[in-house]
Amino acid sequence: MGASKLPENQNSPQAPAHGLPFTTDLKRGLYEAIFRRRDIREFLPDPIPDATLARVLIAAHHAASVGFTQPWDFIVIRDLERRRRVHAIFGEEHSKNADEFKNERRAKYLSLKLEGILESPLNVLVTCTPGRSGPAILGKTSIRDVEIYSACLAVENFWLAARAEGLGVGWVSILRTEIFSIPEGTIPLAYLCVGYVRNFPDEPVLATRGWARRIPPRTLLHFDSWQRSDSSGDKLVAAIEDPEIWSEIFPDEDPGER
Amino acid sequence: MGASKLPENQNSPQAPAHGLPFTTDLKRGLYEAIFRRRDIREFLPDPIPDATLARVLIAAHHAASVGFTQPWDFIVIRDLERRRRVHAIFGEEHSKNADEFKNERRAKYLSLKLEGILESPLNVLVTCTPGRSGPAILGKTSIRDVEIYSACLAVENFWLAARAEGLGVGWVSILRTEIFSIPEGTIPLAYLCVGYVRNFPDEPVLATRGWARRIPPRTLLHFDSWQRSDSSGDKLVAAIEDPEIWSEIFPDEDPGER
Repeated sequence: MGASKLPENQNSPQAPAHGLPFTTDLKRGLYEAIFRRRDIREFLPDPIPDATLARVLIAAHHAASVGFTQPWDFIVIRDLERRRRVHAIFGEEHSKNADEFKNERRAKYLSLKLEGILESPLNVLVTCTPGRSGPAILGKTSIRDVEIYSACLAVENFWLAARAEGLGVGWVSILRTEIFSIPEGTIPLAYLCVGYVRNFPDEPVLATRGWARRIPPRTLLHFDSWQRSDSSGDKLVAAIEDPEIWSEIFPDEDPGER
Repeated sequence: MGASKLPENQNSPQAPAHGLPFTTDLKRGLYEAIFRRRDIREFLPDPIPDATLARVLIAAHHAASVGFTQPWDFIVIRDLERRRRVHAIFGEEHSKNADEFKNERRAKYLSLKLEGILESPLNVLVTCTPGRSGPAILGKTSIRDVEIYSACLAVENFWLAARAEGLGVGWVSILRTEIFSIPEGTIPLAYLCVGYVRNFPDEPVLATRGWARRIPPRTLLHFDSWQRSDSSGDKLVAAIEDPEIWSEIFPDEDPGER
């Protein structure tokens, strides 16, 4: 097996990661962040230490980007008056969104708390400025939105680093640029509410509340072609359904169940 | 300070993560993955164990998604004939892209290796199917592409989990859907080359080769409004430039320099 050519995994938590596989403990740190990350809409008012927020922002800045363009900016919003205006816009969007659902589904929608704009200690707006480093971009030809995709990667890094720091993050969709004087050509991509939380739910709230279910990963797999999706003989299908694949990193549980 | 209300950080590597802050070792695992992740274009041919790839795919599947839609699918491509067709398309795109650069910049572009489609042991195409769970989406109103943004978050999870497993990933931009019989309405978002590597470079290759530089994070910060970007008195600016913010997690170095 190919991996046998690589150095043995070392289990000391202080072993440097070098270029190759991480120790089991380092792997676990990443996977804990991934599996325990939640979309959070209930926050404690406690302030966020600057050093903590700085680490999270630096983590976001180290996302992948097309042609190393790093097309993101971060607007840190503490001002309550601006947040009240965002909250009012959210209210309009929320009403429009509610009208798309009927009967019980609409009632359930209206019972969900979907933002923490004012109660979180701060908000962060992640923007994307395509073409900032010039009109020609290494890796950008037929796909127009590659820089927007890159800025999304930064949002996931932000979210994971926040989780590791004990901070919850909730993404609110708003488009208006006038509140923050965002120049033309810059896209307000992700409006994030950020703050400490009383607890992180064991599973996504939309699953607990019966809004949607985690899709079994096996059903998302295709082999060489979209049509070949039920390759029950494929060993990857067996592996993705086998809790044993986690036994070294998580001896006590299957984190994929979260 | 707010954080003082939270339980003390525990430094045992086996301490459960609970809902709140991670131990220093768990945090370090996440940050190592973030800071040591690289866009890789040179691969070893060694096969990837199914259990390893399954963990990486499950990590991708646990990304955030608007309304918990999980709009992604994963086409695992081992077939060399299809990969040769992708490689041919890449060649066309590469020529078009090269023509956007002039003189020395063009020569440098042409000297960069930008894909590992055939030499990597497998490729993974991450797709996005908007509206899969129905036309109405919780959280989707004015912003049309929210599901695409979600699928990008899954790509970053894939990339980080791969890094922790010692696997390199390189994102190639291609649009054509006919090679994989992708149905109308499904978007081929990220074509990823995946495989083991001889080493992960200390810094992004595009930085080493002088194509682009890491932007100082301080210059990406804004406060309450786009215009307020040089708030030298803001403590967050001081923190983001202070290597000491990493001293507990990385006693020996400033990972933000990578």
